[in-house]
Amino acid sequence: MQQRVLVDMDEVIADVESAMKRWYKQKYGGDMDYTGALNGGSLVKGFPEAHQAEVRQLLFEPGFFRNLPVIENSVEVLEQMNKQYEVFLVSAAMEFPNSLREKYDWLQEHFPFFTWHQIVLCGSKKMAQADFLIDDHAKHFQYFNGKPYLFSAPHNLNENQFARINNWKEAAEIFLK
Amino acid sequence: MQQRVLVDMDEVIADVESAMKRWYKQKYGGDMDYTGALNGGSLVKGFPEAHQAEVRQLLFEPGFFRNLPVIENSVEVLEQMNKQYEVFLVSAAMEFPNSLREKYDWLQEHFPFFTWHQIVLCGSKKMAQADFLIDDHAKHFQYFNGKPYLFSAPHNLNENQFARINNWKEAAEIFLK
Repeated sequence: MQQRVLVDMDEVIADVESAMKRWYKQKYGGDMDYTGALNGGSLVKGFPEAHQAEVRQLLFEPGFFRNLPVIENSVEVLEQMNKQYEVFLVSAAMEFPNSLREKYDWLQEHFPFFTWHQIVLCGSKKMAQADFLIDDHAKHFQYFNGKPYLFSAPHNLNENQFARINNWKEAAEIFLK
Repeated sequence: MQQRVLVDMDEVIADVESAMKRWYKQKYGGDMDYTGALNGGSLVKGFPEAHQAEVRQLLFEPGFFRNLPVIENSVEVLEQMNKQYEVFLVSAAMEFPNSLREKYDWLQEHFPFFTWHQIVLCGSKKMAQADFLIDDHAKHFQYFNGKPYLFSAPHNLNENQFARINNWKEAAEIFLK
């Protein structure tokens, strides 16, 4: 029986950070300041406090999730992993209801080898059972029984309780030996 | 710790059957013939073969899932269950991508006591782990480790491998003792 791997979307295969940074640079000319974002929580904390509400509002804008860039090497590595593992894309998308269809369409475009059977859009990941979970939010590991891997993102760089994957080449070394 | 209950949507809390029947009666003047639908699979099989493709197309129509009637007593019983159990609404909605946002909005309207944390829209339910699963499709029980309850629907009346719940009053007797 194939081992099951749950793969998060935002900040693991979909590049929310660069989309926010691009928008911010165009609007305010500044860059993200990672120091405020390093202790978990949202990427939004990486922007000046006065602009955080506005940056967060991006997540509710139609088209935001549909147009996210793909994280480097995620397509190639997941295409191989999909042959050896039972892969589910599990995204805590329910807080952003406009993202639901957009995430589906985004996956169809960039990861056409995944079928709709493999997509899970949820609020909590507590009910999801698997051998592995690759996620940028350590909060999702709290109830997870399998082996968790923290996918590096600016907001989790101070987290040191979990095995870490810094990029998809490292994921390939772990999962595609 | 609260026990976890997964509750399916279509044909368990959302009345797909009556919506299909209403549409069919208006268009063709006929009724559903249950005999063809009794051995699992889709409710669509309850309509004359010549019209099945057209009935199935309803599932892809914008607004279809948003406007489904609520199954009798499901609101009252689930509101109580929600106080005693960890309830997740788990719907294999991914085959019908237009239904994703509609199911979210439908739940907000009819089951406002559920939060977005409790909604799971997926393709397969294989990764979902719980103590109980209430579903009208026995196929979802194949990989389920908890106790499954088959919620009666025309397409599953010949299925006799599983404990059955015929309506939400019976569910209340089981879960709200």
